[in-house]
Amino acid sequence: MKTDQEGAVRSDALLSSWKQTPTRQAIVDYVDRALQEGGAEYVPPSERVAVFDNDGTLWCEKPMPPELGFILQRLAEMAEQDPSLRTRQPWQAARDKDYAWLGDVITKHYHGDDSDVRVLMGGILQAFAGMSVDAYAEIADRFLRTTPHPTLGRQLWRCTYLPMVELLRYLEANGFTTYIASGGDRDFMRPVTEELYGIPAERIIGTTAGLRYQDDDTGGSVVYQAEMEVFDDGPTKPVRIWSRVGRRPVVAGGNSNGDIQMLRYAGQPSRPGLRLLVLHDDEEREFNYTAGAETSLEQARAQDWTVVSIKNDWATVFADEV
Amino acid sequence: MKTDQEGAVRSDALLSSWKQTPTRQAIVDYVDRALQEGGAEYVPPSERVAVFDNDGTLWCEKPMPPELGFILQRLAEMAEQDPSLRTRQPWQAARDKDYAWLGDVITKHYHGDDSDVRVLMGGILQAFAGMSVDAYAEIADRFLRTTPHPTLGRQLWRCTYLPMVELLRYLEANGFTTYIASGGDRDFMRPVTEELYGIPAERIIGTTAGLRYQDDDTGGSVVYQAEMEVFDDGPTKPVRIWSRVGRRPVVAGGNSNGDIQMLRYAGQPSRPGLRLLVLHDDEEREFNYTAGAETSLEQARAQDWTVVSIKNDWATVFADEV
Repeated sequence: MKTDQEGAVRSDALLSSWKQTPTRQAIVDYVDRALQEGGAEYVPPSERVAVFDNDGTLWCEKPMPPELGFILQRLAEMAEQDPSLRTRQPWQAARDKDYAWLGDVITKHYHGDDSDVRVLMGGILQAFAGMSVDAYAEIADRFLRTTPHPTLGRQLWRCTYLPMVELLRYLEANGFTTYIASGGDRDFMRPVTEELYGIPAERIIGTTAGLRYQDDDTGGSVVYQAEMEVFDDGPTKPVRIWSRVGRRPVVAGGNSNGDIQMLRYAGQPSRPGLRLLVLHDDEEREFNYTAGAETSLEQARAQDWTVVSIKNDWATVFADEV
Repeated sequence: MKTDQEGAVRSDALLSSWKQTPTRQAIVDYVDRALQEGGAEYVPPSERVAVFDNDGTLWCEKPMPPELGFILQRLAEMAEQDPSLRTRQPWQAARDKDYAWLGDVITKHYHGDDSDVRVLMGGILQAFAGMSVDAYAEIADRFLRTTPHPTLGRQLWRCTYLPMVELLRYLEANGFTTYIASGGDRDFMRPVTEELYGIPAERIIGTTAGLRYQDDDTGGSVVYQAEMEVFDDGPTKPVRIWSRVGRRPVVAGGNSNGDIQMLRYAGQPSRPGLRLLVLHDDEEREFNYTAGAETSLEQARAQDWTVVSIKNDWATVFADEV
């Protein structure tokens, strides 16, 4: 059996924001085994596919996901221009900064009640209908680069988890191809993922509004429709991953109940997988919550997934720049 | 202005099945300009996206696309097992080898009448509903590797156009990323595209049946549903390309009316594109037909697209192996 010692060497250099804990060791051991040609857990390069959720897994999702802030800004602008929207949800909440209503949308979703998600989505879809994908990319990019996080004292742009970015580099250095598979809007993430995570637009999978081709004299453009195409969460995640990649992943990382099926789908009996669940337990440096992650934490215990404790496993949470 | 001489050198080595015609020159000139840093038509590496139709553009689609043969085999097997299907379309045509009915489906589609496409699709969707994507990949792969072309005296496997495969390599050698964007079934192509074209599964875009995640004790699987997700033709092509890639292509190649929007979408005023339309005019070595391509040929003339004549531009059509 040939051992690829390089894998282990690289890990020390690339995972420097991880503490020397059993969690880090589980990751390094998995990758070492995946690289052992002839070993029982060898994974050929073409099958080294790693998928990661984004909100709460790669960047901070509290007090609300950055995308929600972006949408609320847009909805508030719409309500400024059209008074009739000011007494309708979700415009009313956006204009009044009614974070209780908005927080409930997420919490209810995690508990299986999507009635308010649909109300919110209805507003979102109207907010961007008719806009070209290029124009949307520009305003999403600008929002992410110029908006501060409400409480962390840094730009949203700087709220990515440094240890997770290191993990992406570590996996890639060992021949894995990384993808984002997020319940968040695909096109909101795309303008910044290459710079933030080193993951280019074509490897971003996520929730998607309906699109149509609108022809014109100069080649036409692709524009949003006022309808959903895919809400990429829960059991939809494995489907969208397979649709995009054409392979079953072996590594998956998530942090909530919406990631359970994606984590279950990673690996299979003949090809062991690595399933990572980020646990938000660090009130001091980030946030402390398990709401929306209860079932995934139960599954992690039952299925022997690797739980990543922000408090115990990460020496650094965010990069120094703010 | 810095000229990348390497581009021109590579072209001579890689496009050896192309005759020295204005068509070949147009391709080489476009790529040379795209590589000229500081030039008006310079294309940065990240934007060098090239998309190609498959049936009739990369492999032979006459007398019928390989996928149709695959489906008919499956439908005929179903009719053998269930006599009630023998008087229903499309099973009847499949069992009776009624190629006239089947040919009309395609011809009618190209002329805007999709009534029989829907009948055929209904049968196709029932033919594979409940099957896992892995099982489907296995039977598609076996079909393509073991079935002879009806008239060309070679395996279906060997009916790819050598000059187009060379073009893919040439583009890649010059920093372009190649994708297939086909009206054919995505998952039918995926098992073989890496070997045939050097294009891996994640860069195959195409028509898609609905999928769902089916959980089980060993991580679950993704299985087909008896419904369509996307029929990837005409104005849907730019939408699916953008959805997958997150960028607007600069190079596009097609051969029929279903490729018009994709070709129009390639490039834009600020970023000149190369649009290739394969013309089937070689009765002796391949086939001679324009049915289904009439409008695209008109557009090619009006928009100054590059028409690739099989008869005049290709020294060799197929590789020697049969």
